[in-house]
Amino acid sequence: MSKKLAAGVDIGGTLTKVGLVDEEGELYAHLDFPTRGYTTVDNFISVLASKIQHLAKQLSFAFEMMGLGIGAPNANYYRGTIEHASNLEWKGIIPFVSKAKAHFNMPVYMTNDANAAAIGEVVYGDAKMMRDFMVITLGTGLGSGIYANGELIYGHDSMAGELGHISIDKKGRLDGLGIKGGLEAYVSSTGIKRTIFELLSDSISDSELRNYSFNNLNGEVITRAAENGDKIACAAFEMTGKILGEQLANFVAFSHPEAIFLLGGLAKSGKWIFEPTQRHLEENLIPHYKGKVKLLPSGMIDKNAAILGAAALVWNKQKHKIFDNNQL
Amino acid sequence: MSKKLAAGVDIGGTLTKVGLVDEEGELYAHLDFPTRGYTTVDNFISVLASKIQHLAKQLSFAFEMMGLGIGAPNANYYRGTIEHASNLEWKGIIPFVSKAKAHFNMPVYMTNDANAAAIGEVVYGDAKMMRDFMVITLGTGLGSGIYANGELIYGHDSMAGELGHISIDKKGRLDGLGIKGGLEAYVSSTGIKRTIFELLSDSISDSELRNYSFNNLNGEVITRAAENGDKIACAAFEMTGKILGEQLANFVAFSHPEAIFLLGGLAKSGKWIFEPTQRHLEENLIPHYKGKVKLLPSGMIDKNAAILGAAALVWNKQKHKIFDNNQL
Repeated sequence: MSKKLAAGVDIGGTLTKVGLVDEEGELYAHLDFPTRGYTTVDNFISVLASKIQHLAKQLSFAFEMMGLGIGAPNANYYRGTIEHASNLEWKGIIPFVSKAKAHFNMPVYMTNDANAAAIGEVVYGDAKMMRDFMVITLGTGLGSGIYANGELIYGHDSMAGELGHISIDKKGRLDGLGIKGGLEAYVSSTGIKRTIFELLSDSISDSELRNYSFNNLNGEVITRAAENGDKIACAAFEMTGKILGEQLANFVAFSHPEAIFLLGGLAKSGKWIFEPTQRHLEENLIPHYKGKVKLLPSGMIDKNAAILGAAALVWNKQKHKIFDNNQL
Repeated sequence: MSKKLAAGVDIGGTLTKVGLVDEEGELYAHLDFPTRGYTTVDNFISVLASKIQHLAKQLSFAFEMMGLGIGAPNANYYRGTIEHASNLEWKGIIPFVSKAKAHFNMPVYMTNDANAAAIGEVVYGDAKMMRDFMVITLGTGLGSGIYANGELIYGHDSMAGELGHISIDKKGRLDGLGIKGGLEAYVSSTGIKRTIFELLSDSISDSELRNYSFNNLNGEVITRAAENGDKIACAAFEMTGKILGEQLANFVAFSHPEAIFLLGGLAKSGKWIFEPTQRHLEENLIPHYKGKVKLLPSGMIDKNAAILGAAALVWNKQKHKIFDNNQL
């Protein structure tokens, strides 16, 4: 019997990652290639198709391709479009799924990257038995995928779960969408760097982080500094975890999840980000929720989560009940 | 053919309202009686049963009772319990539905009052064709019922939708659950009174509201003052609408509803609360959502919404898929 495989594609601002994955989450082949530099979207899709063929040729066993799952910024699941993605070259509304259909002889599904991560948590991660949970991705920005009643929340126009743009302070930092005090301006890989720079400007403490430019600073450097006892690094994790914990407590009042999973660059800082977040989350929950919400690392945190999340779309049991124009 | 009726029961802190309602929302008979003063919950339920019998006797046509729907504070839909309700006399966890079963020869459903309002909006109000919307009840506190993917969000333990306890300011007013800056401390019938008193203390403006004690002040008085051009009253509506609009914009980033319905005492102030809320909501939405979220008065705002919402539970199509111990 031939093995059933899905192709998972994560379209990022810089790189597109592609992999072939089975229903158990085994990744058999993968590669990445630049997202930028194509004259048209169709050219990009042609290259994507050839990359998937290239991966398929590397496999030494019989297999059947069950579908293509795509995670992309600003993807509209209902319409199969990428809409006004600020960090992609393609402007306006791109009918990506219908274009992809011309190149692929299999079902094509697309959703935004954070939603793909949440579906991945159900299919491959630690939410297999959960009906109510959320995944928070802490990368360049803050993304979110929210499950309630056993289904991903898409909202009226497929754009639910934009928690990175919750405003936490109307006098605060500007985020990428021009929201004052947008959560991701504080809580993300970029957000903690901004906090570090705020602390370095406010204080006169010595810090090894004074040797880094904004562009050279990253999560690993900050984590290592914290492990060395660097006060600025430790304070930045505490501030970031405080803001995240407080806001997660608010999110709980919305959908009361059983668990909140953290994924992405900042989540890899482990206890440095989990400990303060957990403490402030618990402290800020209303009595009904106290002790009832788990804060967990994503079950895909050490795997190729972006590819797995996208591939999970193909195996996902939830096909939307009304709007079915995404699967072509 | 006999008419099919549901009994709707709204258990409030002071009064319990009961009515007999058909599937179209016609209310045939109703009454209210004190919630307090019974030695046991069972005594209360006996009285409730006799009140429903009393109403049934008033009807001059043949009918069939299809079920009993109950809206109650801190009701747990999954378990059929009322849990630690601070404004009821019954302490701890009360297995209300199973106790009621002994008195009623029909299905019994129970959920909290704001969830009942949301279900009522689907069955009797203006959300009949909507899959993604929320109802915000602005009474003594702020309650919320949230629909996503065509289903009410209950959350892991049936306590989702406690948006009145979202903290908007960690240095702010204390709410009824001890949350600093809890939204309902600003946005509710009580919240706007607190704002009036803050404004009266901060300013030296003349105001007819200086003639009212906190306990005598109410929404009608404040609305009438605003209509008379009272500056304090107008400023209080603007402040309240600003906070509500800003927070609704955050809620939209969560579940992207098609519409947000306002219900309850403060919503009855009409344009005075709707206009500033709408303006600040729109101003604070991220680009994707702008112009796509309707702010509407509940379709039940001029009806007996509490009874209708409770009765709607009986006709509601959503019976929870996994946890079915509520319907007895």
